[in-house]
Amino acid sequence: MGGDRGPDVVIPGAELAAIRHPDFRFLLFGDQSRIAPLLERHPRLKEKSEIRHTDVFVAMDAKPSQALRQGRGKSSMWMAIDSVRQGDADVAVSAGNTGALMAMARFILKTLPGIQRPAIAAIWPTLRSESVVLDVGATIGADARQLVEFAVMGEAMARCLFGLEKPTVGLLNIGVEEIKGVEQVKEAARLLRELDLPIRYEGFVEGDDIGQGKVDVVVTEGFAGNIALKAAEGTAKQLASFLKAALNRTLMSRLGAVLAAGAFRALRDRMDPRKHNGGVFLGLNGVVVKSHGGTDALGFATAIDVAYDMVHNDLVNKISTDLAKLHLRLEPQAEVLSDTAV
Amino acid sequence: MGGDRGPDVVIPGAELAAIRHPDFRFLLFGDQSRIAPLLERHPRLKEKSEIRHTDVFVAMDAKPSQALRQGRGKSSMWMAIDSVRQGDADVAVSAGNTGALMAMARFILKTLPGIQRPAIAAIWPTLRSESVVLDVGATIGADARQLVEFAVMGEAMARCLFGLEKPTVGLLNIGVEEIKGVEQVKEAARLLRELDLPIRYEGFVEGDDIGQGKVDVVVTEGFAGNIALKAAEGTAKQLASFLKAALNRTLMSRLGAVLAAGAFRALRDRMDPRKHNGGVFLGLNGVVVKSHGGTDALGFATAIDVAYDMVHNDLVNKISTDLAKLHLRLEPQAEVLSDTAV
Repeated sequence: MGGDRGPDVVIPGAELAAIRHPDFRFLLFGDQSRIAPLLERHPRLKEKSEIRHTDVFVAMDAKPSQALRQGRGKSSMWMAIDSVRQGDADVAVSAGNTGALMAMARFILKTLPGIQRPAIAAIWPTLRSESVVLDVGATIGADARQLVEFAVMGEAMARCLFGLEKPTVGLLNIGVEEIKGVEQVKEAARLLRELDLPIRYEGFVEGDDIGQGKVDVVVTEGFAGNIALKAAEGTAKQLASFLKAALNRTLMSRLGAVLAAGAFRALRDRMDPRKHNGGVFLGLNGVVVKSHGGTDALGFATAIDVAYDMVHNDLVNKISTDLAKLHLRLEPQAEVLSDTAV
Repeated sequence: MGGDRGPDVVIPGAELAAIRHPDFRFLLFGDQSRIAPLLERHPRLKEKSEIRHTDVFVAMDAKPSQALRQGRGKSSMWMAIDSVRQGDADVAVSAGNTGALMAMARFILKTLPGIQRPAIAAIWPTLRSESVVLDVGATIGADARQLVEFAVMGEAMARCLFGLEKPTVGLLNIGVEEIKGVEQVKEAARLLRELDLPIRYEGFVEGDDIGQGKVDVVVTEGFAGNIALKAAEGTAKQLASFLKAALNRTLMSRLGAVLAAGAFRALRDRMDPRKHNGGVFLGLNGVVVKSHGGTDALGFATAIDVAYDMVHNDLVNKISTDLAKLHLRLEPQAEVLSDTAV
């Protein structure tokens, strides 16, 4: 069990999820001597859980290659992902080291046929509700075909997560005019228009359209996606800080803040990062959900909620079916590759 | 005169600037029949201004190549930039079409010796105060050497704008560990460390560090920079909207909002995009400042304030001097190119 606080967050988080999803059962990978006493205090989780002991852990600051070498076979992260491969578990949820988790997930589960690069999809709170944004940092750079694969995978995830029949999809670009933007983004737009996929492609979106909820799925490569996500998170924190300082300035404004406390609670609630927690790894033969490492039990439970939706709505099969259609159409244009042979 | 509302914003904006900077004189490029009557209502601007008539304008949605072809020699945008080249003006400020403005500025002023690509630097409000972020969309992609040039130019701008002797500089990346990120960003980091430039290079920063004001100058390539800027703007708008809705929910919170009105004004003031308006074009033989197209007179006056600081602190000479040092150190490693021969 990873994350900044390990089982102290994961166990109470799983307890919350166990209550919300009575049909879920849990395999808990980690140090028995730490997990068992915690489970005693979480009886509803205990009756649905099985501990799989290991005392090998991937450090939060380990390099992916190092984690793969040292954690192979015996670390809690490895064992959790491997339980998905073996069919013991339907989905793995971890608050551990993102780079290591992706490297191991890719190594153990392999990418789906025809997929060269997996993606991490984030759930972004918007004015309308929430959107899926991918890739937010699994890999850097993406060619046109990879962007189209991200679109297909993100669209399937949005159907699973939001229950939408036809989520809308946009490509992140700078400037909405056709002339602007990088070549691969323009080429991806052309493919999305011309391939006649069962996707509601809405064209280019800009950075400020994400928070407006202009489309349900925002597609970009991992460097820009990660920076956009963090810039937005930073701005939210900055504004919260400014607001707090402003409300503390005078007695009158402090009094006003007391009266409006309910409103501020509602605002905090709406932007609560714990309620939008859960990065979904897409493009693998199995589902892995990454919880924020610094979250608490409520946040970890949200990541399990996301995992639940992915499993119950059969994410991997939806993606496989859609990718097969995509690759059938791309066939004459691109060679189908996969790393199942790695 | 460009922008969404042309002279109706530019003239009152310049009037405000004329009052703030009594030593400034103005050349006004545009339609005499529209400008002259407006000037009558702005006497302090009128006595410091000279109208240079033209009725050719670059449309806000014109493609840069089209603007360059059709606006050559005679459009207000061309004439304003050309007045800088001729030494008639010290700086050009425009609220017009960004792509066209950059294309023309580059064509007329040429890049500084050794600079392959100009950059647009934005002023980003932070928890500490403000930071310079570049490039925010002049060009897409940048190699290591271009990123180092951006660092040198942004650092000079921060000295001019903030009056700092040694502004701090960071490279925007995903993850602060040395192992992460794109090759060109890592290579730029190595160059900034090893070239022994007179720059306080502080290492990598992430998207959420920008708003925290972790460094005075944030360096990135134009695609990610533009997306980060717009994602942050979008989040600010989104939060303002959430806050408004939350405060309107109950009578009590509405009353609280009335009492805290001063605090909300202070917050609005602090985040007011009109107070951080002005994208500076860097790397050219002259200064061009881009005002937001949709701003009002107050916003346009801010862009002129920025222009004033750049001129009075001798931005172009500072950049030239620093770039000469940089290129002297890079010389054995890279060929010095410029487009002065275009």
